[in-house]
This record gives sequence, structure tokens and C-alpha cells, in this order.
Amino acid sequence: MIIKSTSSIAGVPVTMPGASDTDMQMLLGPGDGCPNFAMRKFTVHPGGHTPHHQHDYEHEVLVLAGRGQAVLPDGSHRLLSPGDAVYVPANQMHQFRNVGEADFEFICLVPARVHQPVNCS
Amino acid sequence: MIIKSTSSIAGVPVTMPGASDTDMQMLLGPGDGCPNFAMRKFTVHPGGHTPHHQHDYEHEVLVLAGRGQAVLPDGSHRLLSPGDAVYVPANQMHQFRNVGEADFEFICLVPARVHQPVNCS
Repeated sequence: MIIKSTSSIAGVPVTMPGASDTDMQMLLGPGDGCPNFAMRKFTVHPGGHTPHHQHDYEHEVLVLAGRGQAVLPDGSHRLLSPGDAVYVPANQMHQFRNVGEADFEFICLVPARVHQPVNCS
Repeated sequence: MIIKSTSSIAGVPVTMPGASDTDMQMLLGPGDGCPNFAMRKFTVHPGGHTPHHQHDYEHEVLVLAGRGQAVLPDGSHRLLSPGDAVYVPANQMHQFRNVGEADFEFICLVPARVHQPVNCS
């Protein structure tokens, strides 16, 4: 069993094109021996956002703190608050934005292959 | 994209032998079309606990609220607080206990097959 505090895990800026003022912490992933899926925590600072993009794998998200916005495939928006669970299917356009004045924090799980060395993105 | 509030999802008592005073909410799972993993939220009420057991699939856990305890394979205990991430490999004995005076809440992800109709546990 592996137990670690989120506060002990270094955050790294998300440098993917289209991302702004967003850090990622790898809570549990292939480096821990997790075979099937990886748990990441994202902190989107005020005014920041993740890329408006799509990819061939799904997201399972749980909002932990702050006030955000999900951009839906048709371009419309939905507000996100702590406790909201979000499923983004593979190949669907999406983006998460901070629309509050404090950090917008969520966990986002993806298949483990996303963080394998041959496909690290 | 599916967005739903945790508060809108009914909790069901965990009736697995060895569980006590614990409810589960299925936040995202096969019923939502999630192909690879399922996100469940557990609320362990004061004095309650999950089963002391093992199984052929892993857990990825994030503590959300309360004060808990993880029982390790050697029988020793580790305190758990909000923000703690826990990885339980397949086939490793484990248990989660509430050792506080408020609800102990965590999410726990498992491979989707665990909640497929042929192997619903």
C-alpha cells in the first residue's frame, strides 16, 4: 500500500499548448505501479484554463475546490463547483476554466497508457 | 460530457460482509459509459469501516473529509487525512476505518469490470 499526502507532491506547470496558469500533480500513476489508470490533481489559478482540445482517451473528473467552468463540445459552458463529477468521453472537445477568484482544483483520471514513457502527454 | 453533483447521487449501504456503517455513491461508472474505470465515493460514518479483505483488482483512493485509518497488510495502521492518496495493489489485504467523530469520506476508483453486470461487487 502506498500512502502519500497531496501536499508532499510537487506540482509541475502544464505546458501543453493552450494551457494557462495550470499546475499538475501526479497523485497515483505508473510510477507507483498503478496498472490501469492514473490520478492527477490539477490546480487552475485564477484566470487560467486547460487546453481546449480532444484526445483518444476519457477523463473522469471530480471538482475539489473553487469555481470553474466546463466548455462543452458545442461551445456552451457549464459552471462547476466542488463535488461535481464530470465524464469526458474520448474524442470529445473540452476545456476547464477557472472563473472564480481562488484556485480551481480538481482531480482528473486517465488510462495509465497516457503516462507511459512511449506516450507521455 | 456528463456533469452531475455528488449531492444528487443516492448513496446505498455497503452490505458486503465485514462492512459497517458505510454508504457508497457511484459517481462515474459503466452506467455512464465509462469504459475503463469507475469512480465511487464512500462515506464511512463514525465507528464504521469497510471490509478487511483483498481482491484481484486495485484501488486508487483520495481522502476528501474526516479522519480515518488504513489497515496495512501486516495489520499495522496509518492515519488518513483529507488530501491523502492511497494505492492498494490487487491481492493485498486492506481496510478503511473511521476513527474520527465526523463522517470519513473518500473516493475509490476501481477497474470498470468490477461493476459490470457479470461481476458486480
